[in-house]
Amino acid sequence: MTSGLFISFEGGDGAGKSTQLSRLADWIEQATTREVVRTREPGGTAVGQTLREVLLHGQDLGPRTEALLFAADRAHHVDSLIRPALDRGAVVLTDRYLDSSVAYQAGGRTLLPAEVEQLSLWGTEHLLPAVTVLLDLDPVHLPERIKGDPDRLERAGAEFHVRTRQAFLDRASADPQRWLVMDASGPKDQVAAAIRHHVAPLLGVTP
Amino acid sequence: MTSGLFISFEGGDGAGKSTQLSRLADWIEQATTREVVRTREPGGTAVGQTLREVLLHGQDLGPRTEALLFAADRAHHVDSLIRPALDRGAVVLTDRYLDSSVAYQAGGRTLLPAEVEQLSLWGTEHLLPAVTVLLDLDPVHLPERIKGDPDRLERAGAEFHVRTRQAFLDRASADPQRWLVMDASGPKDQVAAAIRHHVAPLLGVTP
Repeated sequence: MTSGLFISFEGGDGAGKSTQLSRLADWIEQATTREVVRTREPGGTAVGQTLREVLLHGQDLGPRTEALLFAADRAHHVDSLIRPALDRGAVVLTDRYLDSSVAYQAGGRTLLPAEVEQLSLWGTEHLLPAVTVLLDLDPVHLPERIKGDPDRLERAGAEFHVRTRQAFLDRASADPQRWLVMDASGPKDQVAAAIRHHVAPLLGVTP
Repeated sequence: MTSGLFISFEGGDGAGKSTQLSRLADWIEQATTREVVRTREPGGTAVGQTLREVLLHGQDLGPRTEALLFAADRAHHVDSLIRPALDRGAVVLTDRYLDSSVAYQAGGRTLLPAEVEQLSLWGTEHLLPAVTVLLDLDPVHLPERIKGDPDRLERAGAEFHVRTRQAFLDRASADPQRWLVMDASGPKDQVAAAIRHHVAPLLGVTP
């Protein structure tokens, strides 16, 4: 057991994960004396940056190769950054974690969810977040939200987004203790306030 | 089932894997009309080259990260190169395959052999070579054999070589149907001839 607090943000691209992560991080830094570590997957480490390039902008990869690379990135992220920070007592906020792999590689494609999850649990020695915030957004809102060039995963199409959204929702309802499901189509301030209210008691402060 | 023939070469660095692979490949090209594909792990593909850099010359990686990366490299190698070649009827010769991962990551370090093997079997959808040639060399012969700068795995020390050698030998005796164990300290010509004698019947030619 560690003395830190581990929080992940999950959901489709364009749902506001990085915005909400940043707002929660800023608030924790103001409201507490805790060290706050902001990170993301894939690519939260130097090795991870290389893997991120291979995964998102390289040539087509088979689903098993992709799942193994995401699990490798995550294992290294946990070993070299997340677990040491939690051991120091930090609050670690990550933009995507294990649930993204299960939703994207299994929910969206052809692999079994349990086998994709098992790769990451093995790689991380079963490290799961205390809180996972799902920023849930109906894929009809996506075209207006995503700016710039879509990357390889984003190009995979609308049906893919519908399947991965459902995979996130299914995982959330299977483990309500860990998950906080937010309607990401609401006003950003309101979403941020609701996340603060959920996390504040875990830090022993008032939201 | 494919119409090709898949052969892997295993053993410690400096045992002569690439020399013997090359000699067997040259002989098959002369003795048959079969297409011959020569490859290696890690790094047999473009993506694999990137992973090879991360694995052999990058920063220190935890054993689980390393095992997942080798499995990812192998999954992509099989998907994009080995299986298509076997489907065309080619003879594929690879310098290292799954058994290296089991011997190096599990035999040499702290992971369980069965879990390391399982990663690669999952990644490759259980593709195993028809023949695996083990070039077995007592580690006392190593210093005189390895030239130039040792890479990260080679620096891991003599005790590591003793453990990985034993892991290869154990795997070979558990599956004698697949493995051909050669004493790599013998004359190269003699080793090459013995390998030819073993492989010739599988190609329907005389050695």
